[in-house]
Amino acid sequence: MSKTRLQIIPLGGLGEIGKNMTVFRYDDEIIVIDAGMAFPDETMPGIDIVIPDFSYLIENRDKVKAILITHGHEDHIGSLSYLLRDVKAPVYATRLTCGLIEGKLKEAKVNDADLHVVKSGDEFKAGSFKFGFFHVCHSIPDSCGIYLRTPVGTIVHTGDFKFDHSPVDGEQTDMYKLAELGHRGVLALCADSTNAQNPGYTPSEAVVAKSLMSSYADAKGRIILATFASNVSRIQMAVDAALAFKRKVCVFGRSMVNVVGIAREMGYLKAPEGTFIEPEELNRYRDDRICILTTGSQGEPMAGLSRMADGSHRQVQIHAGDTVIISASPIPGNENSVGRTIDNLMRLGAHVVTSHNTRVHVSGHGSQEDLKTMLSLVHPKFFIPVHGEYRMLCSHAELAESLGVKKQNILIGENGSVFELTNRSAKINGKVQAGAVFVDGLGVGDVGNIVIRDRQQLAQDGVVIVVIALEKGSNQVLAGPDIVSRGFVYVRDSEGLLTEAKDRIESILDRCEAGNVTEWNAIKTQIRDSLGKYFFERTKRRPMILPIIQEVK
Amino acid sequence: MSKTRLQIIPLGGLGEIGKNMTVFRYDDEIIVIDAGMAFPDETMPGIDIVIPDFSYLIENRDKVKAILITHGHEDHIGSLSYLLRDVKAPVYATRLTCGLIEGKLKEAKVNDADLHVVKSGDEFKAGSFKFGFFHVCHSIPDSCGIYLRTPVGTIVHTGDFKFDHSPVDGEQTDMYKLAELGHRGVLALCADSTNAQNPGYTPSEAVVAKSLMSSYADAKGRIILATFASNVSRIQMAVDAALAFKRKVCVFGRSMVNVVGIAREMGYLKAPEGTFIEPEELNRYRDDRICILTTGSQGEPMAGLSRMADGSHRQVQIHAGDTVIISASPIPGNENSVGRTIDNLMRLGAHVVTSHNTRVHVSGHGSQEDLKTMLSLVHPKFFIPVHGEYRMLCSHAELAESLGVKKQNILIGENGSVFELTNRSAKINGKVQAGAVFVDGLGVGDVGNIVIRDRQQLAQDGVVIVVIALEKGSNQVLAGPDIVSRGFVYVRDSEGLLTEAKDRIESILDRCEAGNVTEWNAIKTQIRDSLGKYFFERTKRRPMILPIIQEVK
Repeated sequence: MSKTRLQIIPLGGLGEIGKNMTVFRYDDEIIVIDAGMAFPDETMPGIDIVIPDFSYLIENRDKVKAILITHGHEDHIGSLSYLLRDVKAPVYATRLTCGLIEGKLKEAKVNDADLHVVKSGDEFKAGSFKFGFFHVCHSIPDSCGIYLRTPVGTIVHTGDFKFDHSPVDGEQTDMYKLAELGHRGVLALCADSTNAQNPGYTPSEAVVAKSLMSSYADAKGRIILATFASNVSRIQMAVDAALAFKRKVCVFGRSMVNVVGIAREMGYLKAPEGTFIEPEELNRYRDDRICILTTGSQGEPMAGLSRMADGSHRQVQIHAGDTVIISASPIPGNENSVGRTIDNLMRLGAHVVTSHNTRVHVSGHGSQEDLKTMLSLVHPKFFIPVHGEYRMLCSHAELAESLGVKKQNILIGENGSVFELTNRSAKINGKVQAGAVFVDGLGVGDVGNIVIRDRQQLAQDGVVIVVIALEKGSNQVLAGPDIVSRGFVYVRDSEGLLTEAKDRIESILDRCEAGNVTEWNAIKTQIRDSLGKYFFERTKRRPMILPIIQEVK
Repeated sequence: MSKTRLQIIPLGGLGEIGKNMTVFRYDDEIIVIDAGMAFPDETMPGIDIVIPDFSYLIENRDKVKAILITHGHEDHIGSLSYLLRDVKAPVYATRLTCGLIEGKLKEAKVNDADLHVVKSGDEFKAGSFKFGFFHVCHSIPDSCGIYLRTPVGTIVHTGDFKFDHSPVDGEQTDMYKLAELGHRGVLALCADSTNAQNPGYTPSEAVVAKSLMSSYADAKGRIILATFASNVSRIQMAVDAALAFKRKVCVFGRSMVNVVGIAREMGYLKAPEGTFIEPEELNRYRDDRICILTTGSQGEPMAGLSRMADGSHRQVQIHAGDTVIISASPIPGNENSVGRTIDNLMRLGAHVVTSHNTRVHVSGHGSQEDLKTMLSLVHPKFFIPVHGEYRMLCSHAELAESLGVKKQNILIGENGSVFELTNRSAKINGKVQAGAVFVDGLGVGDVGNIVIRDRQQLAQDGVVIVVIALEKGSNQVLAGPDIVSRGFVYVRDSEGLLTEAKDRIESILDRCEAGNVTEWNAIKTQIRDSLGKYFFERTKRRPMILPIIQEVK
């Protein structure tokens, strides 16, 4: 690779929300920013999480000089433990981010990670790259954007950000650093597009603090607040409000307990001694002295709030007088499960406060005016919108164009696109392997498209299994055909259907015997076709049909 | 049943959006309002549509005097063809609604329906009931609310409605009739709660007309507009705009072609001769002379717009210069599929206009201020919020209370609740059978909870089938164990896993033979338990395990 060119290769986060990962390559040196995961959508049944296909990094493992992490959210750190199994490189992140990463690595039994704690303002050198971190506001403390000084020019990657002039922890997005970088000249900006379709500014977290205070003031009984475990800033506000109203705080949900523990230990979640109580202490306090923090703001069936809502939580039973605050917005696709949770809570008598009726949530991502401010501060020569579905990237590109960035200097790509920059030009030049790797239970990548397609078909119309025992050589039927179905029809009501199916199989077997068809695959195909047609005619359903022939010696 | 009491029994639409159906019973006489269907949610894999469980009506079929339909949308007429198979009663509806019903009945081969065309203002008698229709604004012409004069008092059922002071067809919600009913005294009001959580007024359809005009004015190439097939008012606006810009209109999508056909024939969709063209005529016109109307506004995979977006539509290929207008909001749960459709359209170069960036859609349901207007006009003694998820019913109840309806006079129930009214009291008194009946292909109700649970499990982790042939009597293994899996693991990568599973089964069979266990169910249970545990340990997945034993004589 020529020494006059820099490659920027997103391996995740383009054309999607989540699993952010961007590769920067100069000559034989690679820097990676972020190693995130995504949650599966409705087309991926049974999948637990989705991580980037980072084959490109594995192939080039010796070139990777550093992995830089912008902040501690799952969509930025969630695949790091998988990446580090194959790629050994030093990891740079701020203190809280390192704390959260350590927790995850420990869980994944990755013990040899080389973690470097950085501070906003620090600058490091790795090969020909210099890189530095600058503070940005987001919904977790210690979030950073990153700049890379390369032989070709300076690149700024915003990470997730918004401009918040009154942040919870007092730390504003470092506008001075951004302005300085812009003043000295930025070759390319990679910027968060999550809210590029939202007009106006994203409100400050201070707005939420105010709403929480007033919701707490109105509450007569217990307060149960659900939010993302990783939203440490929000949790701080919930704790502050609890303190203001003399409530003890009790934390439920594995990930919430985990994050609160790390954040408290490291001093990112501030509360005087005695603020937090254990679940078994709850009954020592009056309802109006209790504030419960829990997971489940997305209606996830196994999470704290959902189990409280459906009455299956072991320690918390919802009753009249409880105030439940859902301090989060439903992620697209989760509206129905969140709605069901709310309904169940209300049926149990709880008063439910959501962002629908009160400002108990604001986004951690900048809206159009924030994005314009970023573009104006940095005024890059080239602009690459990242972190977003295709329509969001397009909106972000339009914003940049409206601010005077030349259309030909704005590049919209996809995961795997190779953005190639010189100090005066930028283009998309080729593609490397990229995509989604499914994690299902302990398996990483062992569930591929075929397994997913099978699951989809099984979900749609179920399965019909046909078992036949044939004598080896003679092909005489020794047992069966037996038919077993699951997820297809209610068997008790469908005896006629299955009996006729059996008749059809028997006549196929007779014909095969008569015609001396001994090729079992041919018999199976005939059974599959004949039953498929018959079931569709009779039911308009297309179950998966699995003929199994056993050979008896 | 006492002659001083009236029962109101919702069989659908309470605690949900869709499948609206309400029963009014006085003595031995029953009137039904609406017979709708609902679309399945993500917890009902493979289900086509959901209809109310109307066992109660079947049991009381001789008492049913009339079925009244408020308007022609699927969630109000979609289960009528199923109901009429079991319950023979005259059906009353306005002209367009009857036209749409006839289309559906024909398709369902129900030929003996007794349809009565009514006009807003008409009043009829059925047994002790008098009932009348009054016009309301909604997103389809000829929508009505219904009042029932009963020996116990007058009941008003709004149907779906909003107040639109500038409706497309010039027909406003009949405020005079509502005021008159209110003035004369209304015992109970059943009112649409769909938008009870939305503050303010629902804007007039005229707002959409204006946005459409300006989107059409901006379009340089073809216009492709997607909306609900049943939204005849919106289709009229799309056609009006096409006429204004000298574009021909071409209709795609089975249900859209169907509804447009009926609405044109009956004069509800007005356009001069020569406005509509056939698909094969499209290539005779310049792009800026073409307006395509299509289904698929919800990103449904098989509908017109989705197929255009993924390049699989036979007649319409999207290209740069096309303007796609999605004149609908995503129904909760459909956000992701709509998002994917938009992204695909944009990737093909289309300019996509949605309610996100332009006012090309407004709801057909009244918001809080509309609901208050309705409550104020009718000022009922008792109030029963209907048509909505539980949280919406609660919001509606709060609105009523804020207007001075006594709290104890507001009744929130669920499907099957028996609301019992005298002329001075109202309470929920008992429950009749109610719920959801799944329609899957040709089967109505043959897919129940067991089948659905099986489908969910199959979708989650797939299926593992174990087949064994045993000799009758001796229990000696003649063939197998053979293992077949689908949707569980990618078999090529999992030989070791399945080989060890086979070993485990073999040792179970050996132990059974040694221990003289001849009870096959016991053997199956052991296999299921052992493999379940083993697979979970090794993969953290829980596939459905199906042991099948064949007896060979």
